[in-house]
Amino acid sequence: MNNLDLSLYLVTNNSEDEEKFLNIIEESLKGGVSVVQLREKKAETLDFYNLALKVKEITQKYNVPLIINDRIDIALAIDADGVHVGQSDMPAKTARSMIGEDKILGVSAANIKEAKKAQRESADYIGVGAVYPTNTKDDATSVPKKELKEIVKSVDIPVVAIGGITQENAHELNDCGIDGLSVVSAIMEAKNPKIASENLLKEFKAKNS
Amino acid sequence: MNNLDLSLYLVTNNSEDEEKFLNIIEESLKGGVSVVQLREKKAETLDFYNLALKVKEITQKYNVPLIINDRIDIALAIDADGVHVGQSDMPAKTARSMIGEDKILGVSAANIKEAKKAQRESADYIGVGAVYPTNTKDDATSVPKKELKEIVKSVDIPVVAIGGITQENAHELNDCGIDGLSVVSAIMEAKNPKIASENLLKEFKAKNS
Repeated sequence: MNNLDLSLYLVTNNSEDEEKFLNIIEESLKGGVSVVQLREKKAETLDFYNLALKVKEITQKYNVPLIINDRIDIALAIDADGVHVGQSDMPAKTARSMIGEDKILGVSAANIKEAKKAQRESADYIGVGAVYPTNTKDDATSVPKKELKEIVKSVDIPVVAIGGITQENAHELNDCGIDGLSVVSAIMEAKNPKIASENLLKEFKAKNS
Repeated sequence: MNNLDLSLYLVTNNSEDEEKFLNIIEESLKGGVSVVQLREKKAETLDFYNLALKVKEITQKYNVPLIINDRIDIALAIDADGVHVGQSDMPAKTARSMIGEDKILGVSAANIKEAKKAQRESADYIGVGAVYPTNTKDDATSVPKKELKEIVKSVDIPVVAIGGITQENAHELNDCGIDGLSVVSAIMEAKNPKIASENLLKEFKAKNS
């Protein structure tokens, strides 16, 4: 996958109020979100499928890739742009063989070993975290800034940082060599998701120019 | 899918104690179970995948098809013999296009409309229930015997009955024209899964000869 812009990578949550949910996604895209990952850990398959079709309509309008968390069946069914697998999901190697070479494969990694393995198994990028404490993911391991830097150096593929990143703390990741900021709450729970996205992106572009 | 023997169709549950779980499946196969459906509604994807690989080793040994409930990604990843989708899972049509023509597609139906739709969407068989009260599936609709008969008459594809079937009540389904008995607890919670399977199969063969 060439030219994948990971600058501001939105991972979704809380889709219960669908209208509100879809509106947040659209506003975030107006604000510059460059990748959307749909993450539904408790949804029935049919609900996930139907929601994914609706999100895809929006991401296509903004020409931004839609990545499905964990569920390769959903990704294939709606012809999403890619899948993201964690360490408790389908093995990356298996995921790649299922989605083919042209789709995006992202892998979560919390240390150098996992990062290198993901690269060997043809991940297009890795998501590393949690770089800050987060309430979104109960079981997230903590990755201090020093380790984030080491992980970035250990692989050739792009790295996005995730976990508790806000408009206020994003600048602290300035010197880590990452390719993007990945956020959940900082956009999904923002009063104004468009402005939040603009600010996060500004923060990221500033430090990388 | 030709020559699919649905006579005694085991749907699994309670895989927490894996050794015990795999042993029950193997004993049930010794007792004559003709199809195994692996159903894991709460497992992490990696755990489901690893368990499915282990179950497949056993079903292959007994030359019995392994069908995965709901999760087409798992079915494709382990090259299972088929998938079974409920009304809250992937649409049957989408499921068929994902698994291809050669794999088994089963669909749950609780009325004639759902049964006919499943047939139109290329289901190989349908599972109809709950024919008796069951504790295994909270949200199961109730399908009285009279309706089961009408469903069987409404389609050309095979029908298995499911929901609360036991060695004691199976004979009551004698005159319904079904192609098999599908059970969870009657085997999974039996003191002797092999003998329970033999008895259920005897019950089914008796009424259908």
